[in-house]
Amino acid sequence: MATTQKIIITAAVTGATHTPSLSPYFPATPEQIIADAVKAHEAGAAVVHIHARNPEDCKPTSDLGIMKHIVSSIKQQCNAVVCVTTGGAVWMSKEERLAPAVELKPELASCNAGSVNFVFADLASKLKNPKYDWEIPHLKGTYDLIFSNTFAGMEYYIETMNKYDIRPEFEVYDVGMVNNIAYFYKKGIVKKPIYLQFVMGILGGIPATVENLAYLVKTAREQIGDFVWSCAAAGKAQFPLVTAALAMGGNARVGLEDNVYLRPGVLAKSSAEQVVQLKEIAERLGLETATADEARAMLSLKGLDKVNY
Amino acid sequence: MATTQKIIITAAVTGATHTPSLSPYFPATPEQIIADAVKAHEAGAAVVHIHARNPEDCKPTSDLGIMKHIVSSIKQQCNAVVCVTTGGAVWMSKEERLAPAVELKPELASCNAGSVNFVFADLASKLKNPKYDWEIPHLKGTYDLIFSNTFAGMEYYIETMNKYDIRPEFEVYDVGMVNNIAYFYKKGIVKKPIYLQFVMGILGGIPATVENLAYLVKTAREQIGDFVWSCAAAGKAQFPLVTAALAMGGNARVGLEDNVYLRPGVLAKSSAEQVVQLKEIAERLGLETATADEARAMLSLKGLDKVNY
Amino acid sequence: MATTQKIIITAAVTGATHTPSLSPYFPATPEQIIADAVKAHEAGAAVVHIHARNPEDCKPTSDLGIMKHIVSSIKQQCNAVVCVTTGGAVWMSKEERLAPAVELKPELASCNAGSVNFVFADLASKLKNPKYDWEIPHLKGTYDLIFSNTFAGMEYYIETMNKYDIRPEFEVYDVGMVNNIAYFYKKGIVKKPIYLQFVMGILGGIPATVENLAYLVKTAREQIGDFVWSCAAAGKAQFPLVTAALAMGGNARVGLEDNVYLRPGVLAKSSAEQVVQLKEIAERLGLETATADEARAMLSLKGLDKVNY
Amino acid sequence: MATTQKIIITAAVTGATHTPSLSPYFPATPEQIIADAVKAHEAGAAVVHIHARNPEDCKPTSDLGIMKHIVSSIKQQCNAVVCVTTGGAVWMSKEERLAPAVELKPELASCNAGSVNFVFADLASKLKNPKYDWEIPHLKGTYDLIFSNTFAGMEYYIETMNKYDIRPEFEVYDVGMVNNIAYFYKKGIVKKPIYLQFVMGILGGIPATVENLAYLVKTAREQIGDFVWSCAAAGKAQFPLVTAALAMGGNARVGLEDNVYLRPGVLAKSSAEQVVQLKEIAERLGLETATADEARAMLSLKGLDKVNY
Repeated sequence: MATTQKIIITAAVTGATHTPSLSPYFPATPEQIIADAVKAHEAGAAVVHIHARNPEDCKPTSDLGIMKHIVSSIKQQCNAVVCVTTGGAVWMSKEERLAPAVELKPELASCNAGSVNFVFADLASKLKNPKYDWEIPHLKGTYDLIFSNTFAGMEYYIETMNKYDIRPEFEVYDVGMVNNIAYFYKKGIVKKPIYLQFVMGILGGIPATVENLAYLVKTAREQIGDFVWSCAAAGKAQFPLVTAALAMGGNARVGLEDNVYLRPGVLAKSSAEQVVQLKEIAERLGLETATADEARAMLSLKGLDKVNY
Repeated sequence: MATTQKIIITAAVTGATHTPSLSPYFPATPEQIIADAVKAHEAGAAVVHIHARNPEDCKPTSDLGIMKHIVSSIKQQCNAVVCVTTGGAVWMSKEERLAPAVELKPELASCNAGSVNFVFADLASKLKNPKYDWEIPHLKGTYDLIFSNTFAGMEYYIETMNKYDIRPEFEVYDVGMVNNIAYFYKKGIVKKPIYLQFVMGILGGIPATVENLAYLVKTAREQIGDFVWSCAAAGKAQFPLVTAALAMGGNARVGLEDNVYLRPGVLAKSSAEQVVQLKEIAERLGLETATADEARAMLSLKGLDKVNY
Repeated sequence: MATTQKIIITAAVTGATHTPSLSPYFPATPEQIIADAVKAHEAGAAVVHIHARNPEDCKPTSDLGIMKHIVSSIKQQCNAVVCVTTGGAVWMSKEERLAPAVELKPELASCNAGSVNFVFADLASKLKNPKYDWEIPHLKGTYDLIFSNTFAGMEYYIETMNKYDIRPEFEVYDVGMVNNIAYFYKKGIVKKPIYLQFVMGILGGIPATVENLAYLVKTAREQIGDFVWSCAAAGKAQFPLVTAALAMGGNARVGLEDNVYLRPGVLAKSSAEQVVQLKEIAERLGLETATADEARAMLSLKGLDKVNY
Repeated sequence: MATTQKIIITAAVTGATHTPSLSPYFPATPEQIIADAVKAHEAGAAVVHIHARNPEDCKPTSDLGIMKHIVSSIKQQCNAVVCVTTGGAVWMSKEERLAPAVELKPELASCNAGSVNFVFADLASKLKNPKYDWEIPHLKGTYDLIFSNTFAGMEYYIETMNKYDIRPEFEVYDVGMVNNIAYFYKKGIVKKPIYLQFVMGILGGIPATVENLAYLVKTAREQIGDFVWSCAAAGKAQFPLVTAALAMGGNARVGLEDNVYLRPGVLAKSSAEQVVQLKEIAERLGLETATADEARAMLSLKGLDKVNY
């Protein structure tokens, strides 16, 4: 009798921001990333958002072979939609950053919607005994970091994704970036359905408050019209914000890329554990969780049989 | 290590809006109201918001004896903070509406922050076989109803509450009402801590959306400065909105006065069941529930030993 | 080469709020009202918003003969669109309030979009030597005044206006009232083009800030879609707010009903003087002023030949 | 009797964005820049915002000698507060960009509050017969341009300005940048009074709408508390936005850096002409224009006798 709305849960299991020593549960080798992604899918995540890391030192990498190994292994074990990152690293050209998408032709890939400072230097103070030498400099270095996504770069990403029928997931870090997407939509390059991921609480971007999320959504409705959206939030704002997103009719991303805690003072043992907690909240709001195939329909994805991995 | 914030849960068990035939679980006699309030408190509600109804036909009443019986019985059975309504009924003078507060001198009483249309006529279509003759006309009649709270009336309420050391819980139905409270605060009549209940989704008032809640809170911060706030929402918006309120750092009111469902399609068996569900969400957001005494401290209430019942 | 947008200027020359002793320039007799309206039209107001007052004591009146005399005289002298008030007075039934519209069948009539406290009691302190006995009590009395517009009342007004092809100008005093109009629009009673007048800064309604105006417009876009809108603001907020409205793409209402000053400390000698000042600002924003016939086209009015006066 | 608020008008006469062929009136040589700045000050601009350009080809330059010549000449001719840019050009190090401030020790210098795409490529299509070869590539090149202001960079700028008692004027291009400033304020590096310039309508930043301006101001009030603010807007949004800023209690920047038009279809003959037009609007809003010395007091500037030019 009562209609229920399905929500897409995304699990971002590792990212390129956090370092292994932030949590003993952090999936940092390719095998751990694969295992965490599969578990998160089984727990209810229709989509898994994937970055690659080196097996030796767990450092974020653009190695195509490692990325291919990760996504193929996930595909062998489950039906999850894989969203391949194009965020890359600061020293990479846009061609390098896009290489995994071009090579693997996934159903979904991230597409960052503008340039912004991207600072997580304050995390360095939490690492008392980092396992790897690169961790502290990696974190501290972001104090001088711009996440670079120029208009020329974005246009190149979007057109390449169009060519291979990859749906871009637009990562939006501030209000102006909604306008950037509207610009490419008016130009005819971005096709509907448009999928927005509001990534909040990065120092440099818009703070993670419910007021700001409400403003982003309102702005997008005015500038873009209809679209599918999700919310991710960094650190302790994660659960308040993704919960508010569900309350607003949106979808939600969790995962250890965004926050290594389950709740204040309690480390999450896996991204799956966060997915379970999100599902428990969703149920109490009367919301059902979409399967991977239902998410494919909602986002008009080409299907797992069309990927190149 | 991690600091936790306590939230005040209020249970509004019966109200004067809903009619008994909307749900077989609706507490409509004084004894049912008492039982539901006590159970809600035991489930985690620090505050119970109380209206009186006739034992015979379950109609909302301003009978002082019935109200006194209800609140005394609750006091005998538990430590809950009782918030006595001053909403009354449309035909009552302001003196009559305030009589329960004057007579019972509770710790907390509602104080409506302005005049507004208050329509729930569309509920009439849901009543197929109403038990009582008055139910349908009661609901339909609201199509021509103003909830009357003039400035003269509000001033009288606030000053009387000040006299008896009753904390007003300001019921806010639209943006302008925040300004009404700021007006009385500047006039020196309203004392801090100011306690706001944003009541959303009444037809005639501001719709129950997270955007609107965010705007109300932002407006109140600008006009009033610091205050304690809670949110209540009518109908199916109840759980999304109160959950968003928790995500924003606010408190929350649930109860069958606002919504007879637990989630879409599932009737709540009691206000206590909604309280439990809210607590389950709060825990997943890392929030602890305040006891009645903790709520007393947060709202600077005079204490249960100072009431006159 | 450059396209120019036309704006509709409305002059509200007398209203039912202000009293004659607030300004020596206040048009308070029927003949003064007529003269001020005609002058305001000649200065650039496409629309004149009209209330009636007694010739003897200048008190607001519902006398149909006086209203008819005023609007007929205006019609004889100029081409202005006349917007007839249906605000009436607090003691009048909805039939009495609507009587001028029914009898005169104007092109445009005000239609208040909800109930709200409507307080201008603080003006009483500005009247040192009021000319008439009724002035101070009239102002002070509003401290206990509700401007009553129930859903049943609004439905009656709208349907009657539809019957006589009178376009309602919806007076919106707070955010929830946008939803009231959306309710009647969904019900099929309100027809497009929908014309909204945001009346800001009445104590009891939403305060006159640019933030609030932006929120009202944003809310209306979401709930109603396309509509024509204008802004009016009480007291010293008048010019800042109507100017902001022009900057936002809206139309504007000025006039001594809303504010007896031209700028801080300088009384306006007429509504026309305010119209001129508004036009001077509009020109500097690159905006042209609509003629009465252009306003008729923008609001789809039936035409001056179809009125009954 | 009526208190009047003074507003600071800033004239940004040339910038580094526009190219000479966009308007025959564009001040593009050092001598033209000097003349336009002095004229703008005489017309009412308390502050002039200065970039340097080459005398030969009118290209933006970081040549310290040219900048020194410009600001010294302005100082010789008038009392204006000079705000020296630190925006520089994309190929410059942060030390080079800050060099003019370090060398000249002005009272006020711009300090960009974050990194953002900064695109004005669409202007290229308006240049039919550009006078200089560099103009079209300069404009088109911005399609791949990031305006780089990392946290490390901003900290360096702010601390250097503190050292020489230069007040930073924070250029804010999006909502997150307000948080960036709040971050440095909490860190104790930024001192009050904090001066914010909301620069709106750059493609890549927040669009120039009144709603967005209202949101920026509201956000800043919540995150920073008290501050002085001004608004600038690119292109045809200039006058609507700066007018709205005045209506909101803010200050305003005009000038040919932001917009070469006076109103739609009419080129401005100088920045002074825009200043005059702004003053005419301000007067109609009851606002007086601050002199340079009044602006010095409002912004707590060290005084013209303490500069090094």
